[in-house]
Amino acid sequence: MMGFTLEQLEIGQSASFTKTITETDVTLFAGISGDLNPAHINEEYAKNTMFKGRIAHGALCASLLSTVGGMYLPGPGSIALKQELKFLAPVRLQDTLTAICTVKEKIEDKNRVVLVCSIVNQEGIEVIRGEALVMPPRG
Amino acid sequence: MMGFTLEQLEIGQSASFTKTITETDVTLFAGISGDLNPAHINEEYAKNTMFKGRIAHGALCASLLSTVGGMYLPGPGSIALKQELKFLAPVRLQDTLTAICTVKEKIEDKNRVVLVCSIVNQEGIEVIRGEALVMPPRG
Amino acid sequence: MMGFTLEQLEIGQSASFTKTITETDVTLFAGISGDLNPAHINEEYAKNTMFKGRIAHGALCASLLSTVGGMYLPGPGSIALKQELKFLAPVRLQDTLTAICTVKEKIEDKNRVVLVCSIVNQEGIEVIRGEALVMPPRG
Amino acid sequence: MMGFTLEQLEIGQSASFTKTITETDVTLFAGISGDLNPAHINEEYAKNTMFKGRIAHGALCASLLSTVGGMYLPGPGSIALKQELKFLAPVRLQDTLTAICTVKEKIEDKNRVVLVCSIVNQEGIEVIRGEALVMPPRG
Repeated sequence: MMGFTLEQLEIGQSASFTKTITETDVTLFAGISGDLNPAHINEEYAKNTMFKGRIAHGALCASLLSTVGGMYLPGPGSIALKQELKFLAPVRLQDTLTAICTVKEKIEDKNRVVLVCSIVNQEGIEVIRGEALVMPPRG
Repeated sequence: MMGFTLEQLEIGQSASFTKTITETDVTLFAGISGDLNPAHINEEYAKNTMFKGRIAHGALCASLLSTVGGMYLPGPGSIALKQELKFLAPVRLQDTLTAICTVKEKIEDKNRVVLVCSIVNQEGIEVIRGEALVMPPRG
Repeated sequence: MMGFTLEQLEIGQSASFTKTITETDVTLFAGISGDLNPAHINEEYAKNTMFKGRIAHGALCASLLSTVGGMYLPGPGSIALKQELKFLAPVRLQDTLTAICTVKEKIEDKNRVVLVCSIVNQEGIEVIRGEALVMPPRG
Repeated sequence: MMGFTLEQLEIGQSASFTKTITETDVTLFAGISGDLNPAHINEEYAKNTMFKGRIAHGALCASLLSTVGGMYLPGPGSIALKQELKFLAPVRLQDTLTAICTVKEKIEDKNRVVLVCSIVNQEGIEVIRGEALVMPPRG
């Protein structure tokens, strides 16, 4: 139940989490967040957009990154301080996303780690890319 | 069903959304995202942390910002391109959060708008702060 | 898996269903219906209303009546045609509601039954009252 | 965060809300309401009914009307007092419903407004029609 400390983390170390984004996820996320944008909950509207159908919330997809950070790298006990994300491509219902975090930098004197974050879909298309600044658990 | 176009948006214009973050939200978000970090779902673990109890996922709280963006400012038809967030303070179950987005800059030739993003709790403490780059709907 | 036919139903026959209305029910119902009225999802707002706290959606509470109709009286195979409801009192989170339907009238030549509908809380206060016109399953 | 007062409402004024009714909505609504009628949750049973497949709960579909009332017209602060609905046609999973409320009458001395309520599907078929008596917020 405790993640990697700064000492245990190594540059280049990575972890990932993969999940299919279902209609259920989108429906529940709409209710949790309050984001009932028709692009997410109205198929008739959505099929007339450039995406030709409903797409998942960007914030829902991005949440897979905090799963990697909070569960695996560094894991339990770490605290996210900062996050910077670019949304590169739409995510459709039933797409399977893989979120990957990789240690880019260790800031020893402040107990911080910089993670490179990326999410790719089942076709290998990168849909989200960014960085996060995280405080790993202390030993 | 269409949000504000770049022409309609004005510097300083803002919109907000307020919601109590319930245990249900945290439970569902854990299932949707896969982020089962004990800080969110294990009260016994959480009461021995510096937060003295379970806290909400940062990504869950941040999602209220995309609600403002996708529903109100600019609203339906807008596309989020980039987001930069700092997590400033923990959010406990039953905290009531207000997410506020304010137009900071209009990039006319690229149809982009920069939003300042902020989330404050019921005591006025800012828990998340950041910026987003958004493409408003075209007229 | 088949409910009572018109022949089997008797004037005065009744059935009920009881359920505690949890915060989870309200949170999920908000997402399903899209009804994010602050009276239901914002505790800070709600405690300054005449109800001194969040209340459940009227449509959520009323749904217990269709549970009685569709599950017990007349039960599976019946089709609701018309419903008339009065909302008499607020329902708070954690209230336990009992929905009761009673056969008031049988319309033989049209295969219809009129049900008197009532929902009371744990203190015996009637919160919803009304009538429904239902087509029971044919034998 | 406050809806239209009686003075601000005008005869003929209307508002709407559109949402695709997903399998998730039906599953969650079944759990929330307790209405586990096989017509909603048992595909094998349902495909042998006159509807040839599962249909959404009438009470679930009708809930979109309270979304319009509680969120947009009159909006926050209003209280539903009475509702009368006719269920005209079945709603199938994946149907996209538009709920519309229109001000029909203002009852000045009692601070009441009568709304005409209608829900149509993506083919323009009216599935629910009715009226509601609502108390708008006071200024």
